[in-house]
Amino acid sequence: MSDLHLLQRSPGQILQHLREKVPLIQCLQTPVSMDITANVLLAVGSSPAMVCAAEETAEFMKKADAAAVNMGSLTPARVVEVEAAMKFARDLRKPWVLDPVACGSTTFRTNNCVRALDYKPTVIRGNASEILALSMACTKSEERKSFGRGADATDTTDEALPAAIALARRQECVVAISGSVDRITDGKIVVEVHNGDALMTKITGVGCSLSALVASCVASEPSCVLEATCAAFVLLGVSAEVCHARNPGVLRVKMIENLYEMEAPYLDRNSKMKV
Amino acid sequence: MSDLHLLQRSPGQILQHLREKVPLIQCLQTPVSMDITANVLLAVGSSPAMVCAAEETAEFMKKADAAAVNMGSLTPARVVEVEAAMKFARDLRKPWVLDPVACGSTTFRTNNCVRALDYKPTVIRGNASEILALSMACTKSEERKSFGRGADATDTTDEALPAAIALARRQECVVAISGSVDRITDGKIVVEVHNGDALMTKITGVGCSLSALVASCVASEPSCVLEATCAAFVLLGVSAEVCHARNPGVLRVKMIENLYEMEAPYLDRNSKMKV
Amino acid sequence: MSDLHLLQRSPGQILQHLREKVPLIQCLQTPVSMDITANVLLAVGSSPAMVCAAEETAEFMKKADAAAVNMGSLTPARVVEVEAAMKFARDLRKPWVLDPVACGSTTFRTNNCVRALDYKPTVIRGNASEILALSMACTKSEERKSFGRGADATDTTDEALPAAIALARRQECVVAISGSVDRITDGKIVVEVHNGDALMTKITGVGCSLSALVASCVASEPSCVLEATCAAFVLLGVSAEVCHARNPGVLRVKMIENLYEMEAPYLDRNSKMKV
Repeated sequence: MSDLHLLQRSPGQILQHLREKVPLIQCLQTPVSMDITANVLLAVGSSPAMVCAAEETAEFMKKADAAAVNMGSLTPARVVEVEAAMKFARDLRKPWVLDPVACGSTTFRTNNCVRALDYKPTVIRGNASEILALSMACTKSEERKSFGRGADATDTTDEALPAAIALARRQECVVAISGSVDRITDGKIVVEVHNGDALMTKITGVGCSLSALVASCVASEPSCVLEATCAAFVLLGVSAEVCHARNPGVLRVKMIENLYEMEAPYLDRNSKMKV
Repeated sequence: MSDLHLLQRSPGQILQHLREKVPLIQCLQTPVSMDITANVLLAVGSSPAMVCAAEETAEFMKKADAAAVNMGSLTPARVVEVEAAMKFARDLRKPWVLDPVACGSTTFRTNNCVRALDYKPTVIRGNASEILALSMACTKSEERKSFGRGADATDTTDEALPAAIALARRQECVVAISGSVDRITDGKIVVEVHNGDALMTKITGVGCSLSALVASCVASEPSCVLEATCAAFVLLGVSAEVCHARNPGVLRVKMIENLYEMEAPYLDRNSKMKV
Repeated sequence: MSDLHLLQRSPGQILQHLREKVPLIQCLQTPVSMDITANVLLAVGSSPAMVCAAEETAEFMKKADAAAVNMGSLTPARVVEVEAAMKFARDLRKPWVLDPVACGSTTFRTNNCVRALDYKPTVIRGNASEILALSMACTKSEERKSFGRGADATDTTDEALPAAIALARRQECVVAISGSVDRITDGKIVVEVHNGDALMTKITGVGCSLSALVASCVASEPSCVLEATCAAFVLLGVSAEVCHARNPGVLRVKMIENLYEMEAPYLDRNSKMKV
């Protein structure tokens, strides 16, 4: 962990800034993860708003501190909403996070995720299969045609790392891969996060919530996007692992309890980052 | 609390009527609060139905005892559904509750909330910023242009009370403002409810659930709309406060437990209303 | 319980196969029950995917092991999605489960449920009122015109059994009726399941989750559809009843815990089936 000094803010510092600022996050979220996402954001101290209509996005985005755009359960009507949110986030220079849910599993999904890159996401967060699929699709690589199984990864974050670095460089953004070891990169530095609990994959919407949590952290520390992204991973990971939960039923309840009660020094003491 | 005799039914009496009647409530609800709303209604003893299509509302509303119409995550497709529900509720003389979510935060939202008033809601329940915005918008007051932050209030119920009274008089309905002290008025009497727990604002969908609970109580006691509205606030407030919860994770689970187990005499003993 | 030998697989055997296979289930689910459905499927060991757009169903269904199609909160846009899912499930010979939510409560709902039968569901799971309404609607019986109250049954599974048997024979499928005693039939054999807890009806989305759990079990044991359907009922029923819960708040959390921790021998020891 010798190069941690490259990171200019600790997770605890970012958590503190988040709680002072109470950032307003416009969430374009799939219905399946709206409830957990909103509860995660409220517990940590930010303010979620499930505003989605293209008719009001231009006006609402002005008040928002960041946006979280999730491609889950995508429909043609949803594409219109999502495009408006991405456009205004970019035009108003608001940080925004792309969650390319199930990218690679159908052409419709992959094409819409690739098109989202035109709007310059600040952070892209996905699992290994989604990041691999997105990176290869936007270079029109023909090596592989199928990735993942729905929202579940079938690749490791280690396998997806070169694709993540390439994507981060091309897009000039931060790319974050969730997995048993999380890997986050801005194309230059790679940070590993070793916090978390394997049971998190057995609760629906945890990845979606994490993306919205990344948006909350980046909104609180917009000049340190890499650090803020890492902070979100550490925050959710520590909140989960200190439960020592034996099953997902209790983990869901306790993870939210811990997010609410988390103190900055405790977070920094339990953070397991490696640069 | 000297004028409590003005209220013709106690919360406990209304709870008892609700459990005897098992009112069927048609809920037009934003996806983010559907789960908690349905669980709150089932726990207390009413029967929620998430029927929304304009194609079936006319027929379904005949069977329903009341409707709860929520303006959250409003989209053009949703506007069509909501308008049908409001129209048939009015035409069939079913009590219905308007929840003007995030009214004041965008023009699209405010305009649709103002238009909803044409359908004569029986009760309007919102937070202080939403009620202020709605009341001023329908008098075309130009004093203020921006209200609230998404679904969160930035005003107190005390500040919003004159607007609530004016709105109740103009609309001939009950207006209820949620806050650390809730204030409910029919334009003549003002009732304060001092039950509840500040942590309720850290769980998504509690306000939305409360509106549907108001619809359940009014459906059970349609000739005492003011009392029934107060009963819903007391019921949810007592269910939350007796948890003595330290965080929103446990509060969400226990509040629903308490709603299910609540007994009428206990409710009346713990009710903190002031007229 | 003398004719149990007619069933070729025990619930425990099917649970074991499910966990080895991790079936991918495409869920067309009403938003109100998406969260609990996905969590139930993840807990038991299958992989839910909330893929709904007609634009990607043809491609996604090829990867899926089964589909669960729920008619709740049906809208015209949803009808298009649901029809695509049913068409491709049939054409690709994937097992799929129809949940005719609130069939009988409006003409729009009933007509769409009847039309779904053209796509040859492998299993139909509903409550007594829904099964009665569906069976009578597709024979154009004019005896009764109104059924159920929204998603709640007003008939018993005993009363609905002849309709279920007739429906199973006409459709050559399995029909399963949820109730205090569950009854499952392929038109020849009738299996009763006596597991479960009356409190399950006080949690929203339990029936919807059960339908998706049926899809998971059938995907794991496609040659034993009757047994797989019964296994899903036993699995959810045992997971609920061993909680000895006093209220729905705690039952929801603990039922998911038990699904995750359930062991095959324990399941078979606690199974209460009668042929």
